[in-house]
Amino acid sequence: MSQVTIDRNEIDIVIAAFRSDLTSFLEEWRPIISRFHLIIVQDPDLKEGLKIPNGFDVDVYTKSDIDKLVSASHASMFSGYACRYFGYLVSKRKYIVSIDDDCSPAKDNNGDVVDIVTQHITNLKTPATPLFFNTLYDPYRKGSDFVRGYPFSLRSGVPCVLSCGLWLNLADFDAPTQSLKPELRNSRYVDAVLTVPKNSLMPMSGINIAFDRETVGPAILPALKLAKEGKVRWETMEDVWCGLVVKVVCDHLQLGVKTGIPYVWRNERGSAIDSLKKEWQGVKLMEELIPFFQTLKLSQDAVTAEDCVMEMAVAIKKGMGSKHPELANAAGNMVEWVKIWKEVGSRVLI
Amino acid sequence: MSQVTIDRNEIDIVIAAFRSDLTSFLEEWRPIISRFHLIIVQDPDLKEGLKIPNGFDVDVYTKSDIDKLVSASHASMFSGYACRYFGYLVSKRKYIVSIDDDCSPAKDNNGDVVDIVTQHITNLKTPATPLFFNTLYDPYRKGSDFVRGYPFSLRSGVPCVLSCGLWLNLADFDAPTQSLKPELRNSRYVDAVLTVPKNSLMPMSGINIAFDRETVGPAILPALKLAKEGKVRWETMEDVWCGLVVKVVCDHLQLGVKTGIPYVWRNERGSAIDSLKKEWQGVKLMEELIPFFQTLKLSQDAVTAEDCVMEMAVAIKKGMGSKHPELANAAGNMVEWVKIWKEVGSRVLI
Repeated sequence: MSQVTIDRNEIDIVIAAFRSDLTSFLEEWRPIISRFHLIIVQDPDLKEGLKIPNGFDVDVYTKSDIDKLVSASHASMFSGYACRYFGYLVSKRKYIVSIDDDCSPAKDNNGDVVDIVTQHITNLKTPATPLFFNTLYDPYRKGSDFVRGYPFSLRSGVPCVLSCGLWLNLADFDAPTQSLKPELRNSRYVDAVLTVPKNSLMPMSGINIAFDRETVGPAILPALKLAKEGKVRWETMEDVWCGLVVKVVCDHLQLGVKTGIPYVWRNERGSAIDSLKKEWQGVKLMEELIPFFQTLKLSQDAVTAEDCVMEMAVAIKKGMGSKHPELANAAGNMVEWVKIWKEVGSRVLI
Repeated sequence: MSQVTIDRNEIDIVIAAFRSDLTSFLEEWRPIISRFHLIIVQDPDLKEGLKIPNGFDVDVYTKSDIDKLVSASHASMFSGYACRYFGYLVSKRKYIVSIDDDCSPAKDNNGDVVDIVTQHITNLKTPATPLFFNTLYDPYRKGSDFVRGYPFSLRSGVPCVLSCGLWLNLADFDAPTQSLKPELRNSRYVDAVLTVPKNSLMPMSGINIAFDRETVGPAILPALKLAKEGKVRWETMEDVWCGLVVKVVCDHLQLGVKTGIPYVWRNERGSAIDSLKKEWQGVKLMEELIPFFQTLKLSQDAVTAEDCVMEMAVAIKKGMGSKHPELANAAGNMVEWVKIWKEVGSRVLI
């Protein structure tokens, strides 16, 4: 329905760097992201300096920047995949678009390169419809609309604050699935985007996402760190946890989450079989997390994302912290995150 | 993941006939439906006999069959679009596939004709996943799976009992939308099927559906009849109402509903502008129906679809019947439907 304006001053592209030479990655993405401001956060464990080709408007953040802002007891919040959250924290822009550095631009069914920034921002700038399901997917998309029976009072939707993109080639399966089916690749480009309905939780992947930082940034946080996680996605749960938190927040605040296009092409990295022995902790945790988050209700006093996160941290610590020390730790990280978020926010205002 | 067997003895194709000459319609569908048993229900208002080409295994039902089963005060339950429900009632098979007689076979993105029977039955014979959202759509489809973070205990899903297909060309928009955008046609073939999450209601369209008659047949019912409805879809609400009822039943009984492929090609019929003046009753009703159905909770005593429908009928009559006589009437039709369903079921057993 609506045409969306892409304002480069509203957008930061955040990339977490796990290898020093970003030349080939950035050259592949140059046509799509070079006109935007980039925030690159270097994995604190990566010792060498970064190699970044010319022609990008970029700020790089390293371990020393993290150490200046975060106390030593919480610095591990920003290790590994979670270092990107430091970029979300220091951004001063309304929208964040973030992709992993093992992704390349994908092509759609017509063979055209997918512009992830335009699609993510379109998803965010058009409303979401979590209160009633529209069978023709996103009703705001050109060529679509609300179907017969959709209540007119719900057709203005709610603000969309999170856009979860998908992956071609190596999809975001877990290590057991990828080990059992080593040949499994996603080759189906589904030309759709839809709202995840209210009260339905989804496993968010941090590989290819965008969000409205001003509204929901305090709830896009690094909190859960597994004991033996490594440097491949299927050993981590940080983004899945974050997805549970942010969806509960969105449902409470009447905000929307979309999933679907844009796709990225995801390249091979790591051995699923090597990861298998490490990952069962996360897999087992999910069994308890889902019923907990599905029944978690926030109070009417929680009217901002910060409020919601603080309430959730208390509930998590109380409900699961004594049985699972890593969840007590996650709750502590959530409190710390909100503290740092407010601190950084007030500095920007000065 | 799984391959599905299509057993012709388990399936009835139900078609409501609004015109006497079905030759061109059935010839178009012959390659897809001729090996199945057809139940054709003639619109009680259509006086001429039906013209049906040779080579089909078909039973035809007319006004006189309806009058034998249903008391005069409830015969209007089966008028117009709702006559197809008579076919659902008299079927003796496990699965029903039903399409409107203004539909033609659609083609997929590769130009291949869509076999709606195989796709609907595949949707029904593979589980649904209403308890947690899978971002890669139907995890049971070939080439897909559950994504990272999806709890293993939920990966067996729940039985799928309703498959809602979609439409190319003339989509199922309402008269106001189609009047405002007379050029609007759906040309996007989205190659996906997904489960509608638990506690999320959707506007079901009866144009192209399939369901597990044995499990959920008693909840696929004709109940709401608008005062001035005519013979075009956008003047009716019978299927939208039925969708609200059956979704509440499925959520209560831990059963699943899928939406997406298969598509049909829907041809032009009727004038949206002519219909506009009639349709506001249904549009206005939806505003009250959605909050009512969203908060309707069934008791633990309701363990079958029949039980659920009877409980809902009581709640609807009590909650909305005094303000809206047409809803009191719908509640009465629901009770009558369960009565006839049981009667017909017991005859089959004898």
